[in-house]
Amino acid sequence: MAKQIVLGLVQMRCKDDVEANLSNALEKINSAVSKGAQIICLPELFRSFYFPQSEDIEQFSLAESIPGETTEKLSKVAKAKKIVIIAPIFEKRASGVYHNSVVIIDGDGKIVGKYRKMHIPDDPCFYEKFYFAPGDLGFQNFNTKYGKIGLLICWDQWFPEAARLTALQGAQIIFYPTAIGWHDSEKKSVAEAQLQAWETVQRGHAIANGVFVAAVNRVGREGSLTFWGSSFVSSPFGEVLARANRNEEEVLIVKCDLDKIDQIRQSWPFLRDRRIDAYSAITSRFVDSQK
Amino acid sequence: MAKQIVLGLVQMRCKDDVEANLSNALEKINSAVSKGAQIICLPELFRSFYFPQSEDIEQFSLAESIPGETTEKLSKVAKAKKIVIIAPIFEKRASGVYHNSVVIIDGDGKIVGKYRKMHIPDDPCFYEKFYFAPGDLGFQNFNTKYGKIGLLICWDQWFPEAARLTALQGAQIIFYPTAIGWHDSEKKSVAEAQLQAWETVQRGHAIANGVFVAAVNRVGREGSLTFWGSSFVSSPFGEVLARANRNEEEVLIVKCDLDKIDQIRQSWPFLRDRRIDAYSAITSRFVDSQK
Repeated sequence: MAKQIVLGLVQMRCKDDVEANLSNALEKINSAVSKGAQIICLPELFRSFYFPQSEDIEQFSLAESIPGETTEKLSKVAKAKKIVIIAPIFEKRASGVYHNSVVIIDGDGKIVGKYRKMHIPDDPCFYEKFYFAPGDLGFQNFNTKYGKIGLLICWDQWFPEAARLTALQGAQIIFYPTAIGWHDSEKKSVAEAQLQAWETVQRGHAIANGVFVAAVNRVGREGSLTFWGSSFVSSPFGEVLARANRNEEEVLIVKCDLDKIDQIRQSWPFLRDRRIDAYSAITSRFVDSQK
Repeated sequence: MAKQIVLGLVQMRCKDDVEANLSNALEKINSAVSKGAQIICLPELFRSFYFPQSEDIEQFSLAESIPGETTEKLSKVAKAKKIVIIAPIFEKRASGVYHNSVVIIDGDGKIVGKYRKMHIPDDPCFYEKFYFAPGDLGFQNFNTKYGKIGLLICWDQWFPEAARLTALQGAQIIFYPTAIGWHDSEKKSVAEAQLQAWETVQRGHAIANGVFVAAVNRVGREGSLTFWGSSFVSSPFGEVLARANRNEEEVLIVKCDLDKIDQIRQSWPFLRDRRIDAYSAITSRFVDSQK
């Protein structure tokens, strides 16, 4: 397994046109490949506009099966180019059972596995609990041609448990396909703090777990939301290796030295010292005070 | 309970003189009180130089009981000034049973409780596993006159589980008395990244848990170590509200609006969406791959 690998983060705009979005994604995958990318990740729900801005039964028609049209087309590209593709899918699992999922396709074109978003948000214009059943596949690692990959999705990025459990499975890089932005009604004064908090908490996961973290966001205006781009890769010590812009599409190409993981975990051996005898209450919702 | 509270972080040098260190701490506590501080925190093991630079049986003579000389003297000050004092102690619990502990004293001079460091480091010049038995009191919250306080110590700051479990107990502010610095043998090129990682991972805990975080470090040169100061307070959204300098003693006075916790947790309801049904593997050391 190669130790020096190249990531390609596709930060893209998404329109109300599933064919145009797929074409755009394929074009950007080709661009990333031409720049040497070996593992290429698309943003959350890349085939459609961000439909959870409203609760609308019609939008379930956007869902598809896994495998399905999107994975078939992307598998051909993965095989032809010998690359790993990370592809978010609005998954129809059964009548009335939909997930916000992501598929990972290896360099031979075969699906390695899929992750179903575990933490589902519900906030003004992010009505995801209406559309998506909570994931039931847990936190996983996927072994690919170019590395051990963990997959989490957007809202998962605020939960240290998700990153930890993924890292404990052996993941070397955690990808977060994302759709995050500013709502028109929010105060402009907190906008910068939100973006900084989003980046900081994920850099924290990289540090605490000694893994690379790659966040891949969409960009541009849709309805009342302005997606803030700013896709980035953090080293296992929290350094931002590269960061995309806030307003435009961009294919971010980032070289990662996987040997860094060994080096950093030897110098800062957090995994050695975890108090696994004392963590069981993490499965509590909250501990109510006796006082 | 007051919602606007004032923290006093005592960033101090520590000498090979337990009396001088106590006098210095008392002087700085008075200075903090005169500037309005209500909850005052001293750095880890503030009564001595950082003795875990070597493994030396003689150093066990520095340990004391809880309650003991240090807590008695600080209790008087706490009562006289009606302040909360957070005081790290090298605790002698029994013959051969020592802990790296911290005591919290309320505004009436009474000890509210104590925390014993759960995660014990062992790195060149930080030979703490030689001196300190791992804590056995778990992760706690302490209700005081001025707020609900969580206590963790230094190496704990790299473990998301520690912050999470403390926040789930109800803590509004997590204090980290600390002794962290650079070792002479380390590459200068990584020094800045270390300091940034240290601050970032703790800001991440603040964000993920919606709590204030206060890190209180020592400063100055001792043996082969240069303690980097940089004590700081993070808001529940990861903003650094104040940060001390890297080289000198400083009493950092920081106003905190505890109502921010409610506001931020309403806007970013992470605690609502935790997947407590899916976190039990957090008590695993590591999950070995089947492949």
